Amino acid sequence: MSKVFVNIALSLDGYMAPEGMSLAHWETPEYKNWGAKWGALTGWLFRQKYFRENLKIDSGGETGPENDFLRQTTERIGANIMGKRMFEQGERSWPEEAPFHRPVYVLTHEKRDPWVRPGGTTFYFVNDGAASALSQAREAAHDRDVRIAGGPDVIQQYLNMGVVDELEIALAPVLFGSGRRLFDNLDDSVSQFRIDNVLGGPTATHLRYVRAG
Amino acid sequence: MSKVFVNIALSLDGYMAPEGMSLAHWETPEYKNWGAKWGALTGWLFRQKYFRENLKIDSGGETGPENDFLRQTTERIGANIMGKRMFEQGERSWPEEAPFHRPVYVLTHEKRDPWVRPGGTTFYFVNDGAASALSQAREAAHDRDVRIAGGPDVIQQYLNMGVVDELEIALAPVLFGSGRRLFDNLDDSVSQFRIDNVLGGPTATHLRYVRAG
Repeated sequence: MSKVFVNIALSLDGYMAPEGMSLAHWETPEYKNWGAKWGALTGWLFRQKYFRENLKIDSGGETGPENDFLRQTTERIGANIMGKRMFEQGERSWPEEAPFHRPVYVLTHEKRDPWVRPGGTTFYFVNDGAASALSQAREAAHDRDVRIAGGPDVIQQYLNMGVVDELEIALAPVLFGSGRRLFDNLDDSVSQFRIDNVLGGPTATHLRYVRAG
Repeated sequence: MSKVFVNIALSLDGYMAPEGMSLAHWETPEYKNWGAKWGALTGWLFRQKYFRENLKIDSGGETGPENDFLRQTTERIGANIMGKRMFEQGERSWPEEAPFHRPVYVLTHEKRDPWVRPGGTTFYFVNDGAASALSQAREAAHDRDVRIAGGPDVIQQYLNMGVVDELEIALAPVLFGSGRRLFDNLDDSVSQFRIDNVLGGPTATHLRYVRAG
């Protein structure tokens, strides 16, 4: 059966996004310095050849172990799940050929028909909760895996449901000070994890955990 | 001049201590399961030969890279700084020969004469703030380094003062869900860090950062 995994970038102080990074301030990255903070968080990613080609930036970039890790992680994805806020920010940022090339299930209260993008990405808008989205994503993923992309509230729901098999965190040494925390609102039903692998990069440490027991 | 470094154990979700771990529940580690959580956080440490010998547990234990790292870290310490809560918990837990063998500066409002322990540890009770404690610790450390041991509120003060040269975190894959967070109350004056070294162990990842710029 498909594995369910979380794959995200995290600041050293535990934030997925800095304060001020919202649609209201999308065009003013200097607001609360959110653009520079986001840049420090994702700098390693933008240097990888696989990422640059996928986002159609150019064909340059690094081809080392981080690039290999990124390719392996991306190629195992059969379907994605994300929250409404992450989708709305992406809708403003992704190129027309959205960089998923697979189904994406968006947890939202908004009713909307599936949105088909060129290149294989289709966004499905799920109104009946996290368990339903997971079930649909599993079916769509076939023998590939389901990636929970974020945001924090979505990841927290799946962690508390105990269905996350693997947790991949690219930990960047930036301190945001405030923003949207990954680890919050966890209850006693949350899974525990063990260390599976650590890959050190110059501006991010790639921590990979698998569910214990 | 002496370096100032933080060296602590941290849960994957960013807590230095689990909820329920306080003097009021010191004898009931089953309270909110704090004992098991603390054990998961510090398990790697209790397996190291250097730690076991220093705490006079026995002369067994592992002698691999984590043990070497622990020895190097400990031997560079010329003086320690800690908060009142950490001291009070230690006062209940340390053997008579407290495991520091160096001066320890305790930030507290309590007025108390220095407390000399056998084996070279003397606790000094500092009533006039974090900057004064650091100045005294630097002087006592001579050419060795000053270690900020915790708790979170003490570390946060020094991070915001911009005086922390190095940050060593032993990140254990346990989720506490609640407790005392390391990274909180940081303001815009907080230092930024870059990755210096990563040492992977089976139950903790040793992350070492140095101040950027």
